[in-house]
Amino acid sequence: MSKLIEPRTLKGFRDFLPATMIPRERLMETARRVYRSFGFAPIDTPALEYTEILLGKGGAETDKQMFRFEDSGGRDVAMRFDLTVPLARFVAQHAGTLGLPFKRYHIATVWRGENTQRGRYREFMQCDFDTIGTRSIAADIETTLVIHELFLAIGFTDFAIHVNNRKVLTGLLERLQLADKSTLVLRALDKLAKIGAAKVNEELASTTGATTEQAAAILEFATLAGTNDEIVAGVAKAVAGSALGEEGVADLRSLLAACAAAGVPDARLKLDVSIARGLDYYTGTIFETFLTHLPSIGSVCSGGRYDNLAGLYTKQELPGIGASLGLDRLLAAMEELAMLPKAATPAEALVTYFDAERLHDYLRLAALVRSDGIGVEVYPEPKKLGQQLKYADGRGFRVALIAGSNELSAGECQVKDLRTGGSETVPLADVPSAIKRVLSAG
Amino acid sequence: MSKLIEPRTLKGFRDFLPATMIPRERLMETARRVYRSFGFAPIDTPALEYTEILLGKGGAETDKQMFRFEDSGGRDVAMRFDLTVPLARFVAQHAGTLGLPFKRYHIATVWRGENTQRGRYREFMQCDFDTIGTRSIAADIETTLVIHELFLAIGFTDFAIHVNNRKVLTGLLERLQLADKSTLVLRALDKLAKIGAAKVNEELASTTGATTEQAAAILEFATLAGTNDEIVAGVAKAVAGSALGEEGVADLRSLLAACAAAGVPDARLKLDVSIARGLDYYTGTIFETFLTHLPSIGSVCSGGRYDNLAGLYTKQELPGIGASLGLDRLLAAMEELAMLPKAATPAEALVTYFDAERLHDYLRLAALVRSDGIGVEVYPEPKKLGQQLKYADGRGFRVALIAGSNELSAGECQVKDLRTGGSETVPLADVPSAIKRVLSAG
Repeated sequence: MSKLIEPRTLKGFRDFLPATMIPRERLMETARRVYRSFGFAPIDTPALEYTEILLGKGGAETDKQMFRFEDSGGRDVAMRFDLTVPLARFVAQHAGTLGLPFKRYHIATVWRGENTQRGRYREFMQCDFDTIGTRSIAADIETTLVIHELFLAIGFTDFAIHVNNRKVLTGLLERLQLADKSTLVLRALDKLAKIGAAKVNEELASTTGATTEQAAAILEFATLAGTNDEIVAGVAKAVAGSALGEEGVADLRSLLAACAAAGVPDARLKLDVSIARGLDYYTGTIFETFLTHLPSIGSVCSGGRYDNLAGLYTKQELPGIGASLGLDRLLAAMEELAMLPKAATPAEALVTYFDAERLHDYLRLAALVRSDGIGVEVYPEPKKLGQQLKYADGRGFRVALIAGSNELSAGECQVKDLRTGGSETVPLADVPSAIKRVLSAG
Repeated sequence: MSKLIEPRTLKGFRDFLPATMIPRERLMETARRVYRSFGFAPIDTPALEYTEILLGKGGAETDKQMFRFEDSGGRDVAMRFDLTVPLARFVAQHAGTLGLPFKRYHIATVWRGENTQRGRYREFMQCDFDTIGTRSIAADIETTLVIHELFLAIGFTDFAIHVNNRKVLTGLLERLQLADKSTLVLRALDKLAKIGAAKVNEELASTTGATTEQAAAILEFATLAGTNDEIVAGVAKAVAGSALGEEGVADLRSLLAACAAAGVPDARLKLDVSIARGLDYYTGTIFETFLTHLPSIGSVCSGGRYDNLAGLYTKQELPGIGASLGLDRLLAAMEELAMLPKAATPAEALVTYFDAERLHDYLRLAALVRSDGIGVEVYPEPKKLGQQLKYADGRGFRVALIAGSNELSAGECQVKDLRTGGSETVPLADVPSAIKRVLSAG
């Protein structure tokens, strides 16, 4: 026999075993269901694209992180590192067929050659939805409602969507005549939580040349607190006189009012002027979403409004708004919050293979249970019952169905609750409802 | 403004637009649902692996087709070209955690640098399920039942699972003392439909040195026809005396009897001694599945039993059985058979944005409809109704909900069937049931 090849995955890549993959798939299914219920349609794009296409927007850091190579036809190709650049290329390429507004979701794998020492993976799933081709605030409102529904559907009640609008900070800086310093201002404000107001003040003065009054106005703005209404009032005061700033305030007011009317509780939608999300790309509403019981994990769903999605590929101006669910981060959070079931099987019940001659009966029993919407596996070999029950336990089955020749001849089966150890013997036709009783007992 | 980048995909790669992606996702969901209902659990593996791992089994043709490159860390890596090699690596690597028997499904993209002139794509989806760690015929039976359920669940009634067992041909050749010529025999038999019996006879004589009697026995075997019972009887006669052949006959009999007992009609399970599926890998039961109304498209679900999955990576012998749904081929078939809906939206209803001041009412109406399980999109801008209805029609919405200020003040809404053009005005609370009436009208 030849030498064995060591079975291993590449650094930064990982396998998903059933116990992890089952909740991961469920999460993707929930996202798909919610996106679809708002009329977002699925698309898919190739994992590999011309490097020229992908290089377009990413900026220097992303470029170095690309898995890039020459294919056997001599083409310079790379694996996609996000779903936004492919979306831009896709919309530019198919604009005529798609029509506007165009609402799509895209759940797919992306690859980045990141430094794995920070606990990052080089392959991960993105879960994006966007509305393209409209500047209407109705799309911003809907995006907020989608995020809200999404987290409820996943099983969270304690979360907060932090919302801001890029126009208000820009408006304030316009009013302060610091509009050309916005990158530097944001850089300083980003450190507020870490270094405190006094140091940010110093940095604003040294990097932007802000006067004491200007710096104070910026800091007062960035630390506005209170109810959403109180913050909006503060923002309105701060940007008064800037047309853009006033537009941002009007947008925020429309968004907050509509979400309240649609039943989003105040606690789950917080106006937060401290969030910024990458100055260059976003131009209006921006979102971040935090889990109340695990704020340290950071935003698990972020996004915002942009003025022009695909300027690199088409002259057609395509405004839009979207957000991205951080699937892997959210799964990690759910694991930490003990929200994930432990089972390594998607089926609820195991039919034990008790009597070697009775396979047909076991198959018929399984079909009966399955026809009632309950997942069921038939153990493939007539091994010792103890061994089969051990297997059932290890996999996380909730119920074992046990029947020997006597029970089957009497038209009966034992339904065993694998958590409590209790069991009842019922007529075969009643097995599905007996299983449901066990499952509903929790 | 800088020069535009031409938006295009690589040769052999393609985008999936909503109208194609919606049925594609539904097909994957159906497969997942059926696999899970039999206790198969999902896994995922990296798109990129060490080339050494992937090279293991594929053979010369596959090697040339790999997307292979050196990553930025100097590793020789490649994109997976199937899901079987990664499964072998995965099971060898995680054997201790997984336990046996291990039943998994894996729906994922694979890449092959195929000649695109044959209408093949370089990126496509595979949809595999396997049971590993048992030699029991119960697993072969279950695999057959899964295929049967899968096609019913997708919406087919007219299909046939062709089943054979590698042991019976091997048994026949043993009996004829041509066991070492099996590759050549299969190569000749593969041409039966194309070149006819006489030419196959000639080829058998010239390549394997078969006598007239031997060649006649092989041809008689390969052309056995009739009911499953008649063919089994013919096979049993042909292999009588070969232990392996008799084992194959016993396996086939068990499988046919169990599937019949489980309710699979004879017309959907055909014993077909002419199918072979790659001599080297499969060692027992083999499957191909054909659509009655589109046989020309070839097998849409194939697989079989193997003795040792992961011999390249582990000393542990891992027998198993599995099959793979040809997702893209099946979708092409369903399109040809007009089984696919045409809609480019996953939502059923569009709320038209009729009165600019009434957005909150439209959002509330949408939430009401959605809470009843109906997908609904709110048009994002208060444009002319005709334009919105044209959009609804183009996307393939089934229903438009139309309400101006007067209707809303009266607590009413017009529910318009976009296929018939008919409409009825109902109280807002009755909108979900009015939509369901339209949908159930087909």
